[in-house]
Amino acid sequence: MSTRLEVWAPDGLPEIAPGDDLVGLLAGVLRDDPLVDGDVLVLTSKVVSKAEGRVVPADDREQAITDETVRVVATREHAGGITRIVENRLGLVMAAAGVDASNTPEGTVLLLPVDPDASARRIRAGLSDAFGVRIGVVITDTAGRPWRQGVADIAIGAAGLVVLDDLRGQVDSFGRPLVMTQAAVADEIASAGELVKGKAEGRPLAVVRGLGHLVTDDDGPGARVLVRLGADDMFQQGSAEAYSQGWKDALREQP
Amino acid sequence: MSTRLEVWAPDGLPEIAPGDDLVGLLAGVLRDDPLVDGDVLVLTSKVVSKAEGRVVPADDREQAITDETVRVVATREHAGGITRIVENRLGLVMAAAGVDASNTPEGTVLLLPVDPDASARRIRAGLSDAFGVRIGVVITDTAGRPWRQGVADIAIGAAGLVVLDDLRGQVDSFGRPLVMTQAAVADEIASAGELVKGKAEGRPLAVVRGLGHLVTDDDGPGARVLVRLGADDMFQQGSAEAYSQGWKDALREQP
Repeated sequence: MSTRLEVWAPDGLPEIAPGDDLVGLLAGVLRDDPLVDGDVLVLTSKVVSKAEGRVVPADDREQAITDETVRVVATREHAGGITRIVENRLGLVMAAAGVDASNTPEGTVLLLPVDPDASARRIRAGLSDAFGVRIGVVITDTAGRPWRQGVADIAIGAAGLVVLDDLRGQVDSFGRPLVMTQAAVADEIASAGELVKGKAEGRPLAVVRGLGHLVTDDDGPGARVLVRLGADDMFQQGSAEAYSQGWKDALREQP
Repeated sequence: MSTRLEVWAPDGLPEIAPGDDLVGLLAGVLRDDPLVDGDVLVLTSKVVSKAEGRVVPADDREQAITDETVRVVATREHAGGITRIVENRLGLVMAAAGVDASNTPEGTVLLLPVDPDASARRIRAGLSDAFGVRIGVVITDTAGRPWRQGVADIAIGAAGLVVLDDLRGQVDSFGRPLVMTQAAVADEIASAGELVKGKAEGRPLAVVRGLGHLVTDDDGPGARVLVRLGADDMFQQGSAEAYSQGWKDALREQP
């Protein structure tokens, strides 16, 4: 199976306000170069949050981070304050819980969508209707990564798309079973989209054409299945936090 | 700046053996659809390792992992043995130090290239000469990620390419400075390439066309600058390992 991708970022989406008909606005922007069967739409979560009214006053930013936090993973003091790496209610481990102050109206910060998988399903249904084709939708956010400099986009919502490409049963070029069995293709699609969207240019969407083999008839499991926490998570706490906890517990156990 | 990417995986690279002229073989495969100025070649590290003779007997796999390890980050027992997440000599934190048993001849495992940035520079020089154009080269490997299911490709070598796209000085659509200032574009290019290369099909290279603005005249810093370790690394040890260390140190400090 030979694949050729085209990835581009349509211009012209206006600034989104709470209550805007996001599907209608997206359909308008996409009309010049209409979606075809098997296309994947990559959309920055920011515009979804704005349409869903997930805007809070910037003065409440620290409280908003606290409200979005399920569990603190690590904290680090720096010149500008304290960075909190936390698990948020979506199961995403992110700095500031994903609460974002860029590309938002002055004096406000944005929360992530309430349920990005549900948002992706709605957008998929609306655009599939508008263009009469079967598409996939990925909603992205930008995240830091342990051990790597720089940020990269990941999938926080998805619909109509294989999210984890399960390679079990496939063999390598020597006929042996593949060991690394699940490719996080939704994250890779998010990253590919980011290369054309950029962060500064005000183009919050990209179309990826050529991945029709990953587009599904049903909505599929969504990006939620990309979350790995609990027993499988070897990095539940930052090293300093875990070390400190071990120290405290040892003293408490002492007779 | 509007960007349109094309990404495809040329067919026909033969199985690579130690000492093969990798640049010559790549040039042959790319001849039908020649590289143009600003193209980025994405190449799986496996073929580089093979050409460089980085093959060891599978019986020595555990020893090879030990030899490649600078520091153990976390270990986890499971049914098949013990997974070691380690920092390897390239500064990459990976399961099994990046020592790989898939797509290698029976009875052998592959080590990562000795210096993937140097390999990328050689391939860039050779292919730039062969096609008379300025290109970027990314050498990839597949890595797991904390908190995320599935694996994704990252850049472990690079030449002729902006690796971290520094957005400092740029502003968002409201005119305010961007906060997340460095995009790990080399990793995002690795991920985009993986979407067309795949792991099973024996096509270990991809061409990304349309990122000429990221291709540089000089070799640039290489993928090494994507490594974030030391004081900036909040996940130097797995939680269990750090907890255990804290416990032990507390007991040792007790009078």
